[in-house]
Amino acid sequence: MKEKLTLVKVGGKIVEEADTLNQLLHDFASIPGYKVLVHGGGRSATAMAARLGIESRMVDGRRITDLETLQVVTMVYGGLVNKNIVAGLQALDVNALGMTGADMNLMRSEKRPVKEVDYGFVGDVKEVNADLLASLIRQGIVPVLAPLTHDKQGHMLNTNADTIAGEAAKALAKHFEVTLMFCFEKKGVLLDAENDDSVIPEIDQDTFRKYVAEGIIQGGMIPKLENAYQAIDAGVKEVIITQASDIHKNTGTKVFVSPQ
Amino acid sequence: MKEKLTLVKVGGKIVEEADTLNQLLHDFASIPGYKVLVHGGGRSATAMAARLGIESRMVDGRRITDLETLQVVTMVYGGLVNKNIVAGLQALDVNALGMTGADMNLMRSEKRPVKEVDYGFVGDVKEVNADLLASLIRQGIVPVLAPLTHDKQGHMLNTNADTIAGEAAKALAKHFEVTLMFCFEKKGVLLDAENDDSVIPEIDQDTFRKYVAEGIIQGGMIPKLENAYQAIDAGVKEVIITQASDIHKNTGTKVFVSPQ
Repeated sequence: MKEKLTLVKVGGKIVEEADTLNQLLHDFASIPGYKVLVHGGGRSATAMAARLGIESRMVDGRRITDLETLQVVTMVYGGLVNKNIVAGLQALDVNALGMTGADMNLMRSEKRPVKEVDYGFVGDVKEVNADLLASLIRQGIVPVLAPLTHDKQGHMLNTNADTIAGEAAKALAKHFEVTLMFCFEKKGVLLDAENDDSVIPEIDQDTFRKYVAEGIIQGGMIPKLENAYQAIDAGVKEVIITQASDIHKNTGTKVFVSPQ
Repeated sequence: MKEKLTLVKVGGKIVEEADTLNQLLHDFASIPGYKVLVHGGGRSATAMAARLGIESRMVDGRRITDLETLQVVTMVYGGLVNKNIVAGLQALDVNALGMTGADMNLMRSEKRPVKEVDYGFVGDVKEVNADLLASLIRQGIVPVLAPLTHDKQGHMLNTNADTIAGEAAKALAKHFEVTLMFCFEKKGVLLDAENDDSVIPEIDQDTFRKYVAEGIIQGGMIPKLENAYQAIDAGVKEVIITQASDIHKNTGTKVFVSPQ
């Protein structure tokens, strides 16, 4: 039987402020067993770009990454945010190892083709090499993944943190029984956007499609749930959508695939 | 018998310009066997600090690292420079893994005590944990080390790259027969500073002391050679001082300790 592994994805907001970061690191440290942390950092990147006089342009919540912006996200995600988290976890005796997709060739991606939008140096993941990572995890290492990949031709590429989390979870599912936890600002997927306590405890694909059709689930929650179903189809044991302060509890919305 | 490992330390100048970086990566990739790369990045840090309106203050070639400067070096050394090197090596099929001293708790340091000078967030290395690193190296991983450590209390610390190289070499000497290569702008230690071809092929401690007394060896070369003798005393097989473009050749100045 495979051993359990928890992969937690947290957005930028949580890891960019000292108080919430500190709480997150304590909660994450208290998760038993094997684990991986995937982080964002968009707010810090936007703030750093502004200080450097670089305009941040977003389309549908995705950052247009020109060469200057690529340098900003490489240093902010891969350096500032990542190492801050790693040092914080080490202080809690969690043996963290910060990585991007370039490190150990963990994730090779291809620069997104230009269609209606030219996203610039943004990578779509093509290959995940998690065997060595799995062996490191078994040796007690806790990988901390920044939302960056590389093209195996010498270039870093900006990559969505939800995608990194989903791809890492799928690749690690060959080695572990993976719980993938997506954190966002709410307690879970809400039945009523105005009521924070209306968390849907479990949602299967049919219910998801129904809620989307009815407009109950909308916006950024749709790709998040689509990612979740894809991960389960690819072997991830369970996906939980919750808030960062609940990662050590058994709450949030459990996403599952109904038996056919 | 221990297997061979080559640890190359290159300064910022080489890794910060596309042409020299590209040449370095090719030369480094052609070194056979186990290897480690340690890099600087001071010029990029100074340039980035200037763009952010942060003044760079140096005392005896060491950077005064206030909190803002610590953030700059963390993102520039740990992110921008490190990941650029890692992606470049991956393109040459070198399975690079970028790390700071915080990652896998590789190097714990203590904030330098304030004496005549307050260097700020600068770390003096106290503990190196290289056993897991050695096992990774045996699995084909090539560590790329940024000049940053941590205090195991949640803080990154700026640390001299020569020190990182020396400490890593000493710790890895328990596992490998280590050649430590310090690169700088000259072909080796020169007998005549005006003559680039006056490389001293070998230098023992007595000759070193004599040359220092005579003023032949001066400035930054003195701590570099002191570091080298310390490394040899601590078990490193040989130390070579050379220029970056010669790392794949058997040239430069070999530093050795005379038998007592």
